[in-house]
Parts: sequence; structure tokens; C-alpha cells
Amino acid sequence: MNATQIEPTATLAHLQESKPEKVTIVLLSGDLDRAMAAFIIATGAAAMGMQVTVFFTFWGLNTIRKNGATSSAKDWLRRMFGLLNKGGAESLPLSRFHFGGIGTKMMQKVMKQNRMPGVPELMQTALDLGVRFIACTTTMGLMGITKDTLIDGIDQFAGVTTYLAEAKQGSVNLFI
Amino acid sequence: MNATQIEPTATLAHLQESKPEKVTIVLLSGDLDRAMAAFIIATGAAAMGMQVTVFFTFWGLNTIRKNGATSSAKDWLRRMFGLLNKGGAESLPLSRFHFGGIGTKMMQKVMKQNRMPGVPELMQTALDLGVRFIACTTTMGLMGITKDTLIDGIDQFAGVTTYLAEAKQGSVNLFI
Amino acid sequence: MNATQIEPTATLAHLQESKPEKVTIVLLSGDLDRAMAAFIIATGAAAMGMQVTVFFTFWGLNTIRKNGATSSAKDWLRRMFGLLNKGGAESLPLSRFHFGGIGTKMMQKVMKQNRMPGVPELMQTALDLGVRFIACTTTMGLMGITKDTLIDGIDQFAGVTTYLAEAKQGSVNLFI
Repeated sequence: MNATQIEPTATLAHLQESKPEKVTIVLLSGDLDRAMAAFIIATGAAAMGMQVTVFFTFWGLNTIRKNGATSSAKDWLRRMFGLLNKGGAESLPLSRFHFGGIGTKMMQKVMKQNRMPGVPELMQTALDLGVRFIACTTTMGLMGITKDTLIDGIDQFAGVTTYLAEAKQGSVNLFI
Repeated sequence: MNATQIEPTATLAHLQESKPEKVTIVLLSGDLDRAMAAFIIATGAAAMGMQVTVFFTFWGLNTIRKNGATSSAKDWLRRMFGLLNKGGAESLPLSRFHFGGIGTKMMQKVMKQNRMPGVPELMQTALDLGVRFIACTTTMGLMGITKDTLIDGIDQFAGVTTYLAEAKQGSVNLFI
Repeated sequence: MNATQIEPTATLAHLQESKPEKVTIVLLSGDLDRAMAAFIIATGAAAMGMQVTVFFTFWGLNTIRKNGATSSAKDWLRRMFGLLNKGGAESLPLSRFHFGGIGTKMMQKVMKQNRMPGVPELMQTALDLGVRFIACTTTMGLMGITKDTLIDGIDQFAGVTTYLAEAKQGSVNLFI
């Protein structure tokens, strides 16, 4: 019985080694705290040699919009919505204690005092480490967000099929 | 050494092929945007041939309640809670800019103008594609939600053990 | 061709058996409903023999802070923030219908009437079942939370690298 010559542990080790360690993150939230968590995980995983993809959808798209970007949609409904839903990684609110901006400003000040990178810096590090940023086309249309209002370096646009093709190979798949 | 005759890549390919591609989604949120994301992923995965299970818990149960359904619990506490927490996939609020309903109505109008399916349509497509809907019995009890106030087609009820048995086989497990 | 002697199904079964069934949960939310879901899953998985790790970050840290704990940071900014962001598993608000505390109290009353364990009881069960609790050092610093203001039994502190090392071996990885 030659089958006994194969050591299962060796096979397991090989499989784990050859399996691409992929991480996917769907970022739906536009909250400062959730976005920070997403990018701390994304940069951490990339630094550990894992392949990371972040999919931006709904309010998560705000993190990759230019600062102060509003909607350029032609219909008044989406334009009005775009006025409310201002873009820019620097103006993300906290999910708690935002208090019309005061709480969030306080948190950002604490981060600076402790020399912690903010969302814009974490995002740049992520891009430098090769993290893939993909903007969800479906919700971009829905929210009246156009490509020219996104920050530089965002050149991948896709929908749910692309996400799932990545996620099903992922070791870690998070929805934030 | 006959062991060398086995090509690890072939074995790996086989394993990946035979592994059932399962997707599980816990939908705790009752927000329109999060529910939409959940069902876009669920229908997308089902269309790609994956086995999808959605577990509805807490506010996520609202999506599978009949429109306008309130609690039928006998104790006034849960009945009061049920009055506040109205069910129905058509009345889910946005997690941002709900503005007492105005923002959400606006978003729903934009969706209709762009011929995008809403949550009720996405849910029907999911059911047609064979997505399993499971209602969490623990939180149903907690929130005073009874089976007869759920939409037609919901006939699976279970708790955390059923969820975990599915999720540990899942390629993609999301908590939304 | 001796390779044919190896039955792929047997190998697969073996692999699945030997693979450690790990569950990781990042608890960022400090909402009563989300914390309850996290600990119901954590205790359920531990009871099924899975290895469970919960990482507490941002508002999720509130669940493992002593009741009424405020920040002991020296700078007034974090101290002020700490005053707002009171700790304690017994004072977590509902993500909906908190109503300045009335809605949350109502829900807690219903839980007691139905003899459902609350977050403090679920957490104790989790610890008794061997669930690992890890507090995120990065956000502890950011929010001015010190070790001595955490409940007893919390003795593991780590960052994103520890989380990812666990998560990449996980069968089920959730972000709550």
C-alpha cells in the first residue's frame, strides 16, 4: 500500500503554503472608526504579505472621494443627495459622539497628538503596499458619484461578481 | 518513492473543486443600505452557482416581516417595542440621511428611476434562485415576532448552532 | 500508477478533520444588539468545540470595561471623551430605539422576563468555555482606556498582526 507513504501533514502544509492568502474587505460604512479599522487591517495584512482587496460601496465610497466632492448627477434628486453626502476621507464622522463634528474633531486631535496615522495616511500606505481598491459601480450610479470626483489612483471599478470571485478564494473576508 | 507521483497541484485543484462553495450571511441590520448589500451579494452568489444561506436576526428580521406588521406579543413591553419596530422590507430606513423618512424616500425614488430592484424584488430573486432564508428563533422571541407575521416562503427557523454548522463550511461568511 | 491508490475523498476528509476549526470575531460595535449577537455566536461555537477568539476594538472595548469606568488619561481631550464614552457591559445602548435609555431598558426587561442571559452573563459563559478575549492596544491608547479599568480576566493585549495570524486560520471570521 503505497498510499501510506504520503504524509497527510506534509500535504496539509503544502496546501496551506500554496493557497494564496487573500483578504477581502467590503467597506460599506462611511464612519471614521469603521474606516480606520478597515485600513488598519488592510495595511497590516499587506505588510504580512497577504493579497488584500478593498471593495468600496455605499457610504464607504466617501473615503475615496475627493475632499468636499458633491454629486455631479444631472437629476436634482441625486444632486440633492450628493450635497448632503459630502465626500472625502478627512470628513468621515465617528459612528458615536460625532456631535455635529465636535466629537470627531476631538478624536482626530487625539490621533494627531499620539502620532497615529489618519484614514488618508492609512489609505496611502495601503495603496503603496499594493492593496487593490475597487469601487462598486452599482452604488456609484445610485449615489450619483462619478469617476472624476474620486481621488487619484482609483482605477478599478466592478460589481458583485468580481467581489465574489475574490472572496471565495479569501482566507479572511470581512464586511465592515 | 511513489509519493512523488502525486502532483500537489492536481490534489489542490480537486479539493477546491469538490469543496462546496457556500456563502453565509448574518443580517442583523435593518438598514436599507445594508439589506440591499446583503441581497445583492446573496443573489450574485446564487447566480454564480454558490449555495447561499441568509440568517435573519434582530432588526434584520424586519426585512422578512409583512409590511406594517407589529408585534403580537401578549406582554405590553414587547407589544410596545413591536409598535415602534415596524416590519416590512418596504419601510427599511437608510443608515444615514433617513431624515424622518425623506432621505430614504429620495433614495428609493432614485432606485426606481434607474430601474434598480429594491429589497423586496432582490429578496424574491434570492428565493427564486434557491437562497435559504433562516429566521433566528432567539431574537424572534425577544422582539415578540411570531411566524404568522412573516412574509410567505419563510419556513425555516433555527438558532446559532444551525448557523455555525453552515458557516464553518462556508467559503464566504459575512456579518452585515 | 500508485497515485490512483489515494482516494481524494479520504484525503479531503482527513484535511477537514485535522484543520483546527477556529472562529474569530472582531467586536468594534458597542451596541447591545451587536454585542449580544457576537457573544451568542462565540459561546455557541465554543460549546461546539471550536476555538474562538474575540478581538475588542473601539466601542467594542466598552463591553470589557468595568461598569461606569471613565478614561484615566492625563490629557483633557481623551478624559473628556472618556467621560462621554462610559464603559460597562450593563450600559450598552441598542443600535435602534435607545431613546435616551428607555428603549434599551425595555429590551433588557424583556430579556430578564424571558430568562435570556444578558451580555455580562454571556461574556462570563464565553470565558468559562475558554473563549480568548483580546483587547486591541491601538484603540485602547486612542480612547484613553487603561488596563486597570477593564474587568477581571482580561489579560491579553495585542494589535492587528495577532488578529490576522488567528483569522487566516479561521473557518469563520466575522466583523461585528
